[in-house]
Amino acid sequence: MTQSQVAPVTLSVVQAPIAARLPAVQAHLRHVVEADFKLIVDVNSHLLRMQGKMFRPTLVLLADAAVGEPTERAIPLAAAVELVHLATLVHDDSVDHSVLRRGMPTINSLFSHQVSVIMGDYLFSRAMIELVRIGDMHPLHVMSRVTNDMTVGEMRQLLAHDYLKFTEEDYDLLIKAKTASLIAGACEVGAYHAEPRLRDALGRFGEALGMAFQIVDDLLDYTEDTSVTGKPSGLDLREHKMTLPLIAALPEMSEAERQAVTRLMQTPEPSEGQIAEVVASVTRTGGLEYARDRAQRLSLQAERELEELPATPAREALRASISYVVERRR
Amino acid sequence: MTQSQVAPVTLSVVQAPIAARLPAVQAHLRHVVEADFKLIVDVNSHLLRMQGKMFRPTLVLLADAAVGEPTERAIPLAAAVELVHLATLVHDDSVDHSVLRRGMPTINSLFSHQVSVIMGDYLFSRAMIELVRIGDMHPLHVMSRVTNDMTVGEMRQLLAHDYLKFTEEDYDLLIKAKTASLIAGACEVGAYHAEPRLRDALGRFGEALGMAFQIVDDLLDYTEDTSVTGKPSGLDLREHKMTLPLIAALPEMSEAERQAVTRLMQTPEPSEGQIAEVVASVTRTGGLEYARDRAQRLSLQAERELEELPATPAREALRASISYVVERRR
Repeated sequence: MTQSQVAPVTLSVVQAPIAARLPAVQAHLRHVVEADFKLIVDVNSHLLRMQGKMFRPTLVLLADAAVGEPTERAIPLAAAVELVHLATLVHDDSVDHSVLRRGMPTINSLFSHQVSVIMGDYLFSRAMIELVRIGDMHPLHVMSRVTNDMTVGEMRQLLAHDYLKFTEEDYDLLIKAKTASLIAGACEVGAYHAEPRLRDALGRFGEALGMAFQIVDDLLDYTEDTSVTGKPSGLDLREHKMTLPLIAALPEMSEAERQAVTRLMQTPEPSEGQIAEVVASVTRTGGLEYARDRAQRLSLQAERELEELPATPAREALRASISYVVERRR
Repeated sequence: MTQSQVAPVTLSVVQAPIAARLPAVQAHLRHVVEADFKLIVDVNSHLLRMQGKMFRPTLVLLADAAVGEPTERAIPLAAAVELVHLATLVHDDSVDHSVLRRGMPTINSLFSHQVSVIMGDYLFSRAMIELVRIGDMHPLHVMSRVTNDMTVGEMRQLLAHDYLKFTEEDYDLLIKAKTASLIAGACEVGAYHAEPRLRDALGRFGEALGMAFQIVDDLLDYTEDTSVTGKPSGLDLREHKMTLPLIAALPEMSEAERQAVTRLMQTPEPSEGQIAEVVASVTRTGGLEYARDRAQRLSLQAERELEELPATPAREALRASISYVVERRR
């Protein structure tokens, strides 16, 4: 077997058709968050240092290029979408009391809970200012709906700790709202100038992609360690969060295994041993396989949506983004 | 002296020209925050029970009526402005760890820190959805700027604890951003359909009114107790927050008085006695008088701005709102 056959799709393959435009998005992002207030400047520079893979701006730019000639407006739109994403991360970390994000300290741990609440609001309102400046009502419509969906997702997340009641249906509603809405929004916003048929197909593509993205995230929490993901492994179990692998595994478990889950869920600070025991049960009873299979089915669904689009390098990059999402390790 | 000469202007006088429209604003508000998710429904019903004086919606409706025939759009605009206000209160209480608001438990104390962060985001994004639905770019422009200003105000608030460095100029910037921006925004948004000359005059009116509003709030913290204001008295000193009375008083204090302030600021949980001592010094050295005088000067400035407007009952109600703000006890 040659190297190329097993190599997963890298982000650079996905970004290839729009890579030349990403620095402009980053520059625009820096410009939009600018402030003349030292504390905000400090938080911003930390946030921009911890900046991630620009996956959502990539989708905006690819959607833009997939429906016609690349537009100038896609740059500020991509920056606004990433800004909403950053705002959400800052509030999520504050809500979860997370200490690490992408291997770096979170705003709440480095500054304070107060600063993270305010800073999330700051970034979000800056994104809105930027969308207003762009002056088209459609992206404003999409992004205000998306941010609202994400708050409902965060509320649903609070209930994902009741492991006896949280079903796969609840999980689907949660990941649609929390993760898939913004990824779908990025695709829709990128295609804001396209005919509704293409825009809607891209929206559906983004929703399936976003759900697969979150399922893979939740899988990685079971399978990868800190050195790879930049956050503690087994964190969801440690925080008593129900995700798909455990939801799927529970009915297949022995009584003794289920009791171990109950004990873990009732222990405020579960030990490494407890976590390892439940991870082993979830693996043995096919929870990981089940989640991988769901991600695969969502991938196929996302791929089908792309058939609506004309054949372009941007469409092929969107197709590659599916493999990237499903095969990634972090 | 007869009763009428000393009676302060009541809110019902201010609201008289638009009182018939306020129930529609409240109904619209309930409609806009609606959710099919139980936790959100529960938080909403608590929030709507604790709902305040509808002062900002009143300003929207008065500004609307002061520049021409009352418009239909003023109702949803007023609801959106109140919603942004509610969102801000929820996050402010979370940032300050406040337990009481208008004599009722705050969202963070009744539910949790998590719920209050998410719920603030929920309300804010609902307001944005509503502004997008209204479909005019100008209110979106004003409200996204205002919400951003308020976050900068909250950041400035975090620095208001350094009592040796926090000047009256810092205080002015703080209250402009934190409080006056939304009150000015309410006036501007209400007049969104008016000629710029009137809209700008109403914006400046709102800024002066809003600054006076915050100064009076900060004064009440020195002069009124829980039974009147619905929150603990002396709270700002207890939380080591610098406000105008103390800023103005400090240079007039004796060395011993200043040392008492230093001790209070260095005590994590100051005693009632310590607080009473500093309140007495601030009173003796004219800090309260100074703040009252600033509020008065801002009132005159607000009144002058109203001269731009045609003589209408709405304009007279706006004039009455100045007295209401400056004379209120809670």
